[in-house]
This record gives sequence, structure tokens and C-alpha cells, in this order.
Amino acid sequence: MKGKPNFSGVIAPVVTPFGEDGAPDVDRFIEHAEWLLENGCTGLAPFGTTSEANSLGLDERMELLEELVDGGVDPAKLMPGTGSCSVADAAILTQHAVDLGCGGVLMLPPFYYKNPSEEGIVRFFADVVDDVGDDRLRIYLYHIPQVAQVGFPLPLIARLKQEFPGTVVGLKDSSGDWANTKAILDAHPDLEIFPGSELFLLQGLRAGAAGCISATANVGARAMRRLVDGWEGPDADKMQEEISAIRLTIQAFPVIPTLKALIAHYREDPGWAEVRPPFVPLPRAEAERAITTLADKHGFRLDFAEAA
Amino acid sequence: MKGKPNFSGVIAPVVTPFGEDGAPDVDRFIEHAEWLLENGCTGLAPFGTTSEANSLGLDERMELLEELVDGGVDPAKLMPGTGSCSVADAAILTQHAVDLGCGGVLMLPPFYYKNPSEEGIVRFFADVVDDVGDDRLRIYLYHIPQVAQVGFPLPLIARLKQEFPGTVVGLKDSSGDWANTKAILDAHPDLEIFPGSELFLLQGLRAGAAGCISATANVGARAMRRLVDGWEGPDADKMQEEISAIRLTIQAFPVIPTLKALIAHYREDPGWAEVRPPFVPLPRAEAERAITTLADKHGFRLDFAEAA
Repeated sequence: MKGKPNFSGVIAPVVTPFGEDGAPDVDRFIEHAEWLLENGCTGLAPFGTTSEANSLGLDERMELLEELVDGGVDPAKLMPGTGSCSVADAAILTQHAVDLGCGGVLMLPPFYYKNPSEEGIVRFFADVVDDVGDDRLRIYLYHIPQVAQVGFPLPLIARLKQEFPGTVVGLKDSSGDWANTKAILDAHPDLEIFPGSELFLLQGLRAGAAGCISATANVGARAMRRLVDGWEGPDADKMQEEISAIRLTIQAFPVIPTLKALIAHYREDPGWAEVRPPFVPLPRAEAERAITTLADKHGFRLDFAEAA
Repeated sequence: MKGKPNFSGVIAPVVTPFGEDGAPDVDRFIEHAEWLLENGCTGLAPFGTTSEANSLGLDERMELLEELVDGGVDPAKLMPGTGSCSVADAAILTQHAVDLGCGGVLMLPPFYYKNPSEEGIVRFFADVVDDVGDDRLRIYLYHIPQVAQVGFPLPLIARLKQEFPGTVVGLKDSSGDWANTKAILDAHPDLEIFPGSELFLLQGLRAGAAGCISATANVGARAMRRLVDGWEGPDADKMQEEISAIRLTIQAFPVIPTLKALIAHYREDPGWAEVRPPFVPLPRAEAERAITTLADKHGFRLDFAEAA
């Protein structure tokens, strides 16, 4: 049986805003993180795929995380991405997150070399765990095979859990393949499992998932939170339908530039729409189409006035 | 017409040795680099795929490069890999290489996010070139789509050459697809083009390639150099046949662990065989089979006694 989980509910991989000079914008970042925690999110996963983490430099990632904690965000609610192709940099990022008191870290496998052996991935994690050498370390495996191309198949998950008991405690499944998420849930009821999309939120909760970690939680966490709180009630299926309709609308656009365009629009702050290469900002017409479609068809809007 | 090229001939993506503590082994690294330059190589491309560069940390890469130059290797002969998923880290590595006087840099495209737009990749390179802001910068594009999953298709190469004239000066084509290499050679006779395998060395030289940058140059540069020096002579086809036979034998094994196992064997230095995760060392029986096959069938051996 599971003990008290470290993380549950709705977790947003916080989008990373950039200033006019192209550097990460600390003020916008903290403001958005706090707004998320006040508007549905139970935790934050900065430096995920949605955060353009792999477009950030090693130092930029560490500085932003420090600013977030210094800015008052409870580090226990933070599950920063700390994966890297190299043991060396993964260990630096992970140690840094643990030192700041983060509740967990979300780790990609090393993703440059393709088709690594199971043994090679286990050794990678063994080296990181050994380098960090801290009992507080809690690792969430980040399975996103369509992007990283290197993933966590079921036998590897089992082996990592067995090799690092109490350290490897969960997984985010961003495969978009419910059958895979269900198989992991069935095999590992003792892990904290998060589907990577709210499309599977209700199915997930019914099957023992801890919640979801989803890109679109950056703009839609409130509705997801209502479902997390009410999934055993009579309105659950209807809530899931509404959540799914919005998700499907957003993911028909390039997700990261669209999330930023939505925030820019409702904050009346055009600078928010900036992205780093290899992404390009959403063309204005596309952004307007996304905003209008969501508003007209789904009554979707963001209310930043309610932020503290 | 081409001016005097920055690089030509046989270039080895230097394998990176590790010490017992798992850290890069500077002494072995410099010794191997110098041996390569004395035994066929005209240049070195440290921190390529074969170098396990993406298993090294940002600081480790910069420290090793400094040690190489401090150790007496002519930086004009160095084309270090400085690509990264992030503009920030790519710019740091590239600036560092330029500051050390390196003749060029070999750059992967940002490879985490898949299917980037052409515009996104151009912006990535624009940001790196702008951040470095140094006229000495010479970029060689590193096309290895089967690993990076993000490559340099022909229209992108043309656009990068046009946007950064005199800065984007060459390309390594590790696709293993001669038709692609030939198409690039035909379209861009003004670029320094290097097939990523000596299997295409003679074909390449005949079609205008500058040489080759090949993993197996770590152990077979002398024979490749003889072909580069004698490709217009009567023995060229026979030389290519012998080179290809050795290459095909090596690449039937896991290449990086096998190259290290060969060096470890002939240096009588077992520590040379170490690799970093996600790679694992070649099992002893496999290593012996590689060594024996190469020696018995192809008369292949490494002579480190001749090193300075």
C-alpha cells in the first residue's frame, strides 16, 4: 500500500517567460507560478518539456529555481525537471534541487544516444543517485518517448523501483497511450503515477493515478482541480468532457507557443508570448484563432485579476 | 570556388577516456590526441558523438578542451563539438572554443524538441552567432539524424549558408546515406563537406569532399590518411577496399565501447575501456572477438610504441 504521497493532484510544468533580452524573466515566472498555486495547482513541475527546459542553460535553470524558492514558493510543492543527457549535469541539477528542499525531481532518461540498454539506463540513475548521495532525493521518471525517443518501458520501471526503493517513487507518463499508463498503474500501485495529459485524468484517478502533470494546467488547472476534488461525485464524467474539449482544442495548435499566447492575451502583456528557438512564436492570426475558438466554443478565459 | 579550407583530411572525433573515479582522464586524453595527430589525423573533433560528448557535463567539456590546448595541441587543428539543445549552453561552449583559438566548431542542431521548423533552427544559430559575436567563428553543421533525430535537410543547409556567409563553412554528414552526401556536395561545392564514415572516403574525395570525420579514425587514421594523400593514384580503390573491410568489422560491434576496448588492449591499459552510461563496456568475450577478428582477418593492430 502507498504511504502518504509526496505529490498528488494537478501539477503544472510551468511555462518559462523570456524578457526582451531573451533571458528568462524572473518576475513573470514567479508571478505565474504563484498564480498557478492559487488557481488549482497542488504542485509545480518547472523545467518540463512545456517549460522549454531543454532550451535553457544549466545555470539559467538553477538560477530560476532559486528565484522561485526565494520568491516564497514552498519547495515541497516543486518537482523540477533535472534530467540531462549527461550524468554530470543531471547530478548537478538534481543536487541543487534537493539542496533547495524540492519535494521531488522529474527526470528524463539520457536522451541523446538512442536504443540504450536497460543496464545502461540503470547505471545512469545509479550514478546520479550516488553522486547526489542524499536520502531526501525523490525521483519521478519522465516517460515521453515521442520527444525524448528514449523512454521507460515496464521492465525498466520495475528494475529502477527495485534498485532505488524509496528514491524512485513515481512516474509521469506523457506517451499519450492510456494502455501504457494503465499497465504501469496495474503493475506499480505503490508508485505515484501521473498521466501527462488531463485527457486521462478521470480514467487515471479511477485506476489509482495520483493526479496529472499536464502542459495545459498552465491555463486550465482550476477545472482539473475540481475534477480531482470531485471525481467520485455525480458530475465527474461531465467535468472530464469539458476538460477534454478544451485540451483537444489547445493541442490542435502548437502547444507551447499557444499556452504563452493565451497568457499574453489575458495578461495584456505581449512579451509573454516569446519562446526560445527551436520554437517560434505563434503567428498573430493563429493566436487569435486559438483565443476565439476557446472563448466562443468553450467559454474559456483566464482571470488574472483574481491573482494576489 | 573554395578558398583555402580550414580543415581537410582525416579528422577523429576523439574518444574520451575516464579514470577510476569516473571523471574524464586528462592524461590519457591528451596522450591519445597527440598520438592521433602523429598517426594520420590532420585534425581532431573532440566532443563528437563518439566522444560521448553528450554524456559529459558542460564544465567537463570546457576543462578537457583547455587541457588539450594547454597540453600543446594546436587549437587551429581542433573542431570541438559545441552543440546543445539550448542556445545558452551552445553559446557558452562555442564562445569558449573560439576564445581558445579553435579552427572551427562542429554543431548539432538543438535536438530535444522534434520536428522543429526551419525558421526555428535558423533562429537558434542566429542567436548563437550573435551571442558569440566573434568573426573568427567557423561553424561545421553536424548532420546525424539517426541519433539526433533533428538534422540538416538540404534547404536548411542552403539557408544557413546564406544567412551566415563565411561563418557556416562546412558540414559533417553522418547519415550514412551516400546519396545525401553527394547531393550536399553537388549543391554546395563552396562548403567543406566531410562524410561521417570512411566507407565513403574515396567516393567523397572524387566528388569534392574535404576528407572524412570518422569514429574509427580513433584507431585507423593512418590507412585513411594514405588514401587522402593518394586518392588520385593507382592504388586508391584497393586502399578503399581495405579501409572499408576494417570499418565494417568494427561497426558490426557497438562502436564506442569497441574503439575503447581496442585502445585498452593495445595500450595494455584496461582502464581505457571505461564508458559512461548510457553505454556499458563491451563484455570481455566480445572485446576479444573484435580484437581477434580484426587482427586475423585484416592484420589490424595498433602501435602505440611509436607514439612520442
